[in-house]
Amino acid sequence: MKKIGIADTTFARVDMARYAVKALQARGTGYRLLRRTVPGIKDLPVACRRMFLEDGADLCLALGMPGKAEYDKTCAHEASLGLLFTSVLEAKPIVECFVFEGEADGPKELERLAQRRAEEHAENAWSMLFRPEDLTRRAGTGLRQGFADAGAARRTR
Amino acid sequence: MKKIGIADTTFARVDMARYAVKALQARGTGYRLLRRTVPGIKDLPVACRRMFLEDGADLCLALGMPGKAEYDKTCAHEASLGLLFTSVLEAKPIVECFVFEGEADGPKELERLAQRRAEEHAENAWSMLFRPEDLTRRAGTGLRQGFADAGAARRTR
Amino acid sequence: MKKIGIADTTFARVDMARYAVKALQARGTGYRLLRRTVPGIKDLPVACRRMFLEDGADLCLALGMPGKAEYDKTCAHEASLGLLFTSVLEAKPIVECFVFEGEADGPKELERLAQRRAEEHAENAWSMLFRPEDLTRRAGTGLRQGFADAGAARRTR
Amino acid sequence: MKKIGIADTTFARVDMARYAVKALQARGTGYRLLRRTVPGIKDLPVACRRMFLEDGADLCLALGMPGKAEYDKTCAHEASLGLLFTSVLEAKPIVECFVFEGEADGPKELERLAQRRAEEHAENAWSMLFRPEDLTRRAGTGLRQGFADAGAARRTR
Amino acid sequence: MKKIGIADTTFARVDMARYAVKALQARGTGYRLLRRTVPGIKDLPVACRRMFLEDGADLCLALGMPGKAEYDKTCAHEASLGLLFTSVLEAKPIVECFVFEGEADGPKELERLAQRRAEEHAENAWSMLFRPEDLTRRAGTGLRQGFADAGAARRTR
Repeated sequence: MKKIGIADTTFARVDMARYAVKALQARGTGYRLLRRTVPGIKDLPVACRRMFLEDGADLCLALGMPGKAEYDKTCAHEASLGLLFTSVLEAKPIVECFVFEGEADGPKELERLAQRRAEEHAENAWSMLFRPEDLTRRAGTGLRQGFADAGAARRTR
Repeated sequence: MKKIGIADTTFARVDMARYAVKALQARGTGYRLLRRTVPGIKDLPVACRRMFLEDGADLCLALGMPGKAEYDKTCAHEASLGLLFTSVLEAKPIVECFVFEGEADGPKELERLAQRRAEEHAENAWSMLFRPEDLTRRAGTGLRQGFADAGAARRTR
Repeated sequence: MKKIGIADTTFARVDMARYAVKALQARGTGYRLLRRTVPGIKDLPVACRRMFLEDGADLCLALGMPGKAEYDKTCAHEASLGLLFTSVLEAKPIVECFVFEGEADGPKELERLAQRRAEEHAENAWSMLFRPEDLTRRAGTGLRQGFADAGAARRTR
Repeated sequence: MKKIGIADTTFARVDMARYAVKALQARGTGYRLLRRTVPGIKDLPVACRRMFLEDGADLCLALGMPGKAEYDKTCAHEASLGLLFTSVLEAKPIVECFVFEGEADGPKELERLAQRRAEEHAENAWSMLFRPEDLTRRAGTGLRQGFADAGAARRTR
Repeated sequence: MKKIGIADTTFARVDMARYAVKALQARGTGYRLLRRTVPGIKDLPVACRRMFLEDGADLCLALGMPGKAEYDKTCAHEASLGLLFTSVLEAKPIVECFVFEGEADGPKELERLAQRRAEEHAENAWSMLFRPEDLTRRAGTGLRQGFADAGAARRTR
């Protein structure tokens, strides 16, 4: 049975893991969920590595919410590089799902955006593990997570 | 028989893999194609590593299309570092082919630019595997992918 | 018995390790403390790696205080990447606790901010080792270290 | 017999390898030359790693010419990090010789600058392999490649 | 007997190694000095790695002087990341001592600043190897290298 690791933070202002789990459950069964909550986004890479090494995760979903300050962008960049390095080292996918607090106007919109993005990234994670051919069918079609899809440049294909 | 891995994304707005495959086929035979489609450019490095490790790829072509926002440039930078790290780790080439959405005015030009760049990078990939001496013959001649070549500084050579 | 490594610097203007140790002791026992003091923040990653490799640390707390100059931000970024790389390599958590000198108005506020942040990161470190389920219970609740918590976007949950 | 690997690109507008080879030959014999030409500067790190791993190179010279656009600076930064990572991983020197197209006014100056810099880096490479004591004798003397030397701050030594 | 490796450059405009060596000798004996001079700061990481791997260095001192141009800052950043990566990989300290040419007004001040900083970093290196407890005693006291110390925020301790 496949194992999906969910890494999330106490720094985030939305419980994105809850939405991700629901979206995964709506997709199907055949996997076991793991969970590690860490303080901030820079703690996510090692949490993922431990779920791969110690718990046998096949894929991790890394959920985080960088703050509004300029410095938070630097932290997000560092965390992203750490997640990339970890996934390459382990040769296992890490689906990064970050919502920047500044992307939304106010807490309600933030909640909604974080919910949609967590759900859509969770669906991607599910596809990567169980239906990779679904992703190939949608290659180059301008899909987005959390916002409306951009769509293919050539609509008439 | 050589194996060429193609990694692409559902985020891109053009099916660059289709153009790359056609260009490879126009060049010759003697290789097998592999394919992995992932959600976004930051998922490309691990997809390449898996094609090297699990499928025995000799070279990967990483096709991506970063969006227009400032943040997309950061993502492209992170993805590029991940691709570089992966290729060095595996000691196998990854031909990165990124088209920034902001490089083109409108969807038609975007489609054309992405097509040309994917084709020309695919031709480079083919040369790297089968005719490395062709590249050496063109060393320092100012070749470009997707736009007109810059040419050699000293034209009279 | 678990081992917690504390890495700190002579560059910092506050003895953050003293506050971190007190906060750990207030939390409970069942661990042994290690300590390595280095000149500056860029020396922290290797200090942590040595506490993991040579002293068997289970988690490290990296305490640092970047200066006010633009260049200090670059150093902090480099140090953070080094800490991230080290924690992933060792598959052990490093809790980074940095206070930028420019975050505070004057030495008194700097002392207070560094104290609070060191304490709260030490408490997080303790939870990561001994009560990970406490962190999961507070996932997505907008916790901050050193400043007031941001709180959850949806307060009524 | 020592082996010197030369990695260069088809993107560059000057055949820097030609100048580098001449400068090496003017210095002396006792080495064998290897050569790998790749499309762009981001392909240089893996080309160097392959010359180290597969061909037994003792040192690589990485020749590249980033373009004028802002994005080209990012690519050069990524390529440099890849070259650094490769040289550390292999514990073998990679002499990076980059000429930014924007450093020169027009193609003639570009050709001359690229020639001088390639020659001077090639001479450095030769010294690193065969006369390291020559470099130590010139430590702290403000040497530059391609432009006039800056000289030592204290001229009277 | 401990071994201290000194890596420096021909690019620097001050012979920082000379000052570092004198400062080490003033501190005490019980170590052997190694030396590798390379062209520029980006060559320092591999020089350090080779002194660790081939010569058995216990600690390296990396001395460099980035120029005044914007691009030199990028090179310094890359070199710093390379030094950090090397020290973590080897689990041995590298004391980075960089003086930016732009930090000083004119060659005399540059010589003096480089001298003081090289001496103070050399003293730190000595303490790290032979008297780590001295560093711990001075933790959080705002020490600086090359300029006046900032001091502890709370002076009355």
